[in-house]
Amino acid sequence: MQSDLLRIGLIQMACEESPERNLEKATARIERAAADGAQIVCLQELYRSRYPCQSEDDNKFELAEPIPGPSSEVLGRLAAARRIAIIAPIFERRAPGLYHNSALVLDSSGVVGLYRKMHIPDDPGYYEKFYFTPGDRDFTTHRVGSARIGVLICWDQWFPEAARLTALSGAQILFFPTAIGWTAEMSAHTRRRLFEGWETIQRSHAIANGVFVAAVNRVGIEGALEFWGGSFVCDPFGELIARASHDQEETLIVDCDLACVEHTRRNWPFLRDRRIDAYGDLTLRFRT
Amino acid sequence: MQSDLLRIGLIQMACEESPERNLEKATARIERAAADGAQIVCLQELYRSRYPCQSEDDNKFELAEPIPGPSSEVLGRLAAARRIAIIAPIFERRAPGLYHNSALVLDSSGVVGLYRKMHIPDDPGYYEKFYFTPGDRDFTTHRVGSARIGVLICWDQWFPEAARLTALSGAQILFFPTAIGWTAEMSAHTRRRLFEGWETIQRSHAIANGVFVAAVNRVGIEGALEFWGGSFVCDPFGELIARASHDQEETLIVDCDLACVEHTRRNWPFLRDRRIDAYGDLTLRFRT
Repeated sequence: MQSDLLRIGLIQMACEESPERNLEKATARIERAAADGAQIVCLQELYRSRYPCQSEDDNKFELAEPIPGPSSEVLGRLAAARRIAIIAPIFERRAPGLYHNSALVLDSSGVVGLYRKMHIPDDPGYYEKFYFTPGDRDFTTHRVGSARIGVLICWDQWFPEAARLTALSGAQILFFPTAIGWTAEMSAHTRRRLFEGWETIQRSHAIANGVFVAAVNRVGIEGALEFWGGSFVCDPFGELIARASHDQEETLIVDCDLACVEHTRRNWPFLRDRRIDAYGDLTLRFRT
Repeated sequence: MQSDLLRIGLIQMACEESPERNLEKATARIERAAADGAQIVCLQELYRSRYPCQSEDDNKFELAEPIPGPSSEVLGRLAAARRIAIIAPIFERRAPGLYHNSALVLDSSGVVGLYRKMHIPDDPGYYEKFYFTPGDRDFTTHRVGSARIGVLICWDQWFPEAARLTALSGAQILFFPTAIGWTAEMSAHTRRRLFEGWETIQRSHAIANGVFVAAVNRVGIEGALEFWGGSFVCDPFGELIARASHDQEETLIVDCDLACVEHTRRNWPFLRDRRIDAYGDLTLRFRT
């Protein structure tokens, strides 16, 4: 089988207070990734600010940006100048008082894709239901060059349904921009347990669907959260190709041979054998 | 939270040529597991014979047994005598010319559950579509004492939909009797890759659903296949509690605190946040 190489760049950053400064940092790192040959560069969730959802604070809505806005403008120009695609996860202001946790897909022609996070968490330290309206644009894919990619955001990563529907839409790679971390009081065992669970569930989406998975998490301590980095790429049978550290800013540059998608699925033909006649109850909350 | 302990036994065996001999071996091992306090004992897929599907050979249908039959009779008496539950995966003869890859759930009162494998593989060395009619009894659970368990079989383990529907039916533990192995020409890297993929996808079902997962695979070389054992139990966040070797007959005796199901789901409330309004297309083969 002929290879079909795509080089991707995952930018694992620590965020500073100023959105402008984070946009500058992201821009500089994207420039370097492009110089290293990356064709698609993915930033972490809500890359333009510190993670705003550690409390319910209505001042934080000021961080939101519209489309078009700073990210689509600056990164759109960068995508055009470098002839690359950029996945830019933003705090989106869609209308007065209506906000989403979103991801733009930008290429030389501007905004070519928009995903709005479908699954919204609400846990101590991650009060996202206060800020973000659940997405209403479905699970979709975006064509980037000759590749077809899917973007899902953080909490989506725990739901096999999200990965499946995106893969069934034709995705060859699933990108998961993320903001997840530990708290100071957690033991080494708990830290390992949480990180392994996070990595395992995402590797499983690669396996179940025969697609590449690329997860991009932030690093750095912000308030009570120590973001655990560990950005990674795995192949369509879930084997790790690259993984970043837990505490350093890093850019992973990884070659993905998209021909592996078909090759893997020929040998592990799960899409052939799904019992679509028996899956109707997946739209139920519970069956009892 | 009060604990709610359930002791389970996983019997990882090598199979001999004679079904009678395998039934005797299984019986002896179940007796020992019961003596060790196991309340539910699970045998491997098609435990009463060598794996019959390495070729398409109509003589192999002679291995099938009806219900009632040797497994339900002998193991039903054993379950009653020891006051335990037994999961007995059989080659089921349902009617002349109609066969299933099934699992009986037996307790003191006899057959209390029957699952018929829903996803049937067909790959070199695993020609199951020739032998087994796909199950028509849905994904269900079985009450065993105060626990509610689900049984899925081998190829089912690669489908997140199967685990999800069984968990939505109330399962606290998913049992996966299995027959999967390597072939002689596989490199050490390929062996590790396949085993890790197999373990990862099943651990992911524990994580996604907040349930225990117990996988029971056979060992031994049969024809071209070297069954890789590695039976394991993981907790509702996918952390391994116990794992057997790749090449020895072993019985894993593991205590599962079923209170962990609710505790884990409180902290990782995925069932709360499923987007059931957006999952309808899971009944499609593909979306393009």
